Amino acid sequence: MGVAFASRVELLKASEIREILKITVRPEVISFAGGLPAPEVFPVEELKQAAIRVLDESGSQALQYSTTEGYEPLRRHISRRIEAKFAVKTAPENILITSGSQQALDFVGKLFLDAGDVVLCESPTYLAAISAFRTYLPKFIEVPTDDDGMVIEELAKILRSTGRVKLIYVIPDFQNPTGRTWSVERRRQFAELIQEFEIPVVEDNPYGELRFEGVIPPSIKSFDAKGLVIFVSTFSKIFCPGMRIGWIAAAENFFEKLVLIKQGADLHTSSISQQEIAKYLELFDIDAHVQKIIEVYRRRRDAMLGSIDALFPADVRHTYPQGGLFTWVELPAGYKSVELLKRCLERNVAFVPGDPFFPNNQIDNTLRLNFSNMPEERICEGIGRMAQVIKEYK
Amino acid sequence: MGVAFASRVELLKASEIREILKITVRPEVISFAGGLPAPEVFPVEELKQAAIRVLDESGSQALQYSTTEGYEPLRRHISRRIEAKFAVKTAPENILITSGSQQALDFVGKLFLDAGDVVLCESPTYLAAISAFRTYLPKFIEVPTDDDGMVIEELAKILRSTGRVKLIYVIPDFQNPTGRTWSVERRRQFAELIQEFEIPVVEDNPYGELRFEGVIPPSIKSFDAKGLVIFVSTFSKIFCPGMRIGWIAAAENFFEKLVLIKQGADLHTSSISQQEIAKYLELFDIDAHVQKIIEVYRRRRDAMLGSIDALFPADVRHTYPQGGLFTWVELPAGYKSVELLKRCLERNVAFVPGDPFFPNNQIDNTLRLNFSNMPEERICEGIGRMAQVIKEYK
Repeated sequence: MGVAFASRVELLKASEIREILKITVRPEVISFAGGLPAPEVFPVEELKQAAIRVLDESGSQALQYSTTEGYEPLRRHISRRIEAKFAVKTAPENILITSGSQQALDFVGKLFLDAGDVVLCESPTYLAAISAFRTYLPKFIEVPTDDDGMVIEELAKILRSTGRVKLIYVIPDFQNPTGRTWSVERRRQFAELIQEFEIPVVEDNPYGELRFEGVIPPSIKSFDAKGLVIFVSTFSKIFCPGMRIGWIAAAENFFEKLVLIKQGADLHTSSISQQEIAKYLELFDIDAHVQKIIEVYRRRRDAMLGSIDALFPADVRHTYPQGGLFTWVELPAGYKSVELLKRCLERNVAFVPGDPFFPNNQIDNTLRLNFSNMPEERICEGIGRMAQVIKEYK
Repeated sequence: MGVAFASRVELLKASEIREILKITVRPEVISFAGGLPAPEVFPVEELKQAAIRVLDESGSQALQYSTTEGYEPLRRHISRRIEAKFAVKTAPENILITSGSQQALDFVGKLFLDAGDVVLCESPTYLAAISAFRTYLPKFIEVPTDDDGMVIEELAKILRSTGRVKLIYVIPDFQNPTGRTWSVERRRQFAELIQEFEIPVVEDNPYGELRFEGVIPPSIKSFDAKGLVIFVSTFSKIFCPGMRIGWIAAAENFFEKLVLIKQGADLHTSSISQQEIAKYLELFDIDAHVQKIIEVYRRRRDAMLGSIDALFPADVRHTYPQGGLFTWVELPAGYKSVELLKRCLERNVAFVPGDPFFPNNQIDNTLRLNFSNMPEERICEGIGRMAQVIKEYK
């Protein structure tokens, strides 16, 4: 006999890049690598008041086991919020509280994917979604994607010619890693196509509220007549990530299965954290708080894009995100971003090379830059150092 | 095309018994059904002080993303604690913080189980462990179990004759559902046997510290020379369950994979909850707190066993748990505990029928009683009503 892992474990590998990036915890490193919110704007004092109120008013209940679906007042708030912001119409009864939106992605993989099933995704796409799905041993097909979203003709071609497509994963608002946002027209066309083929979709929207200009477009779910779209979001970017409170909004046939999956996975998400956020939402104005985050991030984005335009060689391209946390850089052919990272780290600047965001393709001249976690001066300094390294690369 | 779930979803069914038990939230019901700790003894005031200190001293850090493995000071405390209490020797570096021990069970399933693999377990065993493992589509074999633990000769026979045994799941201390504790001799024999066959073991120990008399026996892991035993526990029963903080202690080859599984599943467990518990442990004496819980539960156990002995018919058997939360009742042949439950609910008394604790067998004359969540008067009243129903059953 002897010890034998499940076959999925073969695919679980510690990422080489993650190892390289471990040095970014050193304070002298200017890091554009993580997806970390700015801790300066966490509402620490307000949360303290909320925590005291929860423990004073319903401490025993907040520390006890609670229902798998989540804390009722929080689910009501989320239901109202996603309708107001993203035109998502889902009753509170169909909101499931998860331990961050990462857990939501794992659950959706568990719900739909047998080994060999096909997941369609944008190209590139969020690397931790790839990891979450990969444990269920699917194949990924990257759908060609431009500045307006997935290219619908290409998606249609793939849907017509591919068996076992079980799931489509998209991040239509300020995508991770590219920062791009789908046009409304593309959302509508996409929704039409998936109604025709009846394919479940995960619409992952952690950043949509962090819009620096323009108006929030309606979600893909708002065009979803058949209840195929599972809308996933989180308090991580608009409140704080450390509490790990995310959610799923899904039609009943998906919802009831997801609740059973949640039950087997961890019974329920922290009762006290859910009550504290609900109390915060009752006592304070989270929209005003989000506005504060937007102001900070807008300045940081402007500092980053401004420095890039001023200092990077003209043949380096980048996206123009209207919100969110990231911009995406494409270097001329011949540059390898992993090698560039090593050289940048020698000058104490870090970013994430683009490769791991492509589940199949090997595209080695792209990289993701995060602008939310560093103040403007350090952003300009870091981009300046990167520009030097790029110029000296060859 | 069209919507199609993963094959594992077929096995996800809302439990009929859980539906029946929904009425136990009504305050007039005397419920022996859940596994709920007594909320009266939650350290609400102490936790409030800890929460305030954490937010005052390191609020931004407590609300930010943190490492997958968990909060270093908490891992150090757990490492020391499980060595002192259970003779488990695991370095802090090999402690993984999980979202309750339920998540630990899910992860172990994910680590070892392909469809068709075999899991050995006690008979009966914890129903939520069955649910957690079942999503990975294993077969279960119930190992005959007596008052001292698994019967080693029977286990050896099964190991010799069965292919694909990937995992053995045991709860040696105050088992859920029976309340039984393995003898030290049985632990040693079991450990020897699994060293010989090299089979990974999950030793689940949520209740071990809640011992009302006698001394805590050494864990099975303390006899584990080859690092095969994965020790799983939680703060749910000695502190509070609502924060969902559990842990895994595992040898390096298992640990490194479990960290990658955690990363894909939910990135990490709540930073602020981990820091709050660590602060509580720094400021207060959790052993004194556990002693308080023990006093309360001992009285409740005594009330329950005393009433059963006085009021139930002589041919009804039950276990004598020396700690934990549960006792296990065996009715004479011919009684069906699901039917008994329905009749008891008419008199506002609830329990969990034994059937779902057997993954394969249909044993319909057993039931589990929880004594931790009701005060003594209600325990005596509830057992009295049950005794009536049992006497009128035929």
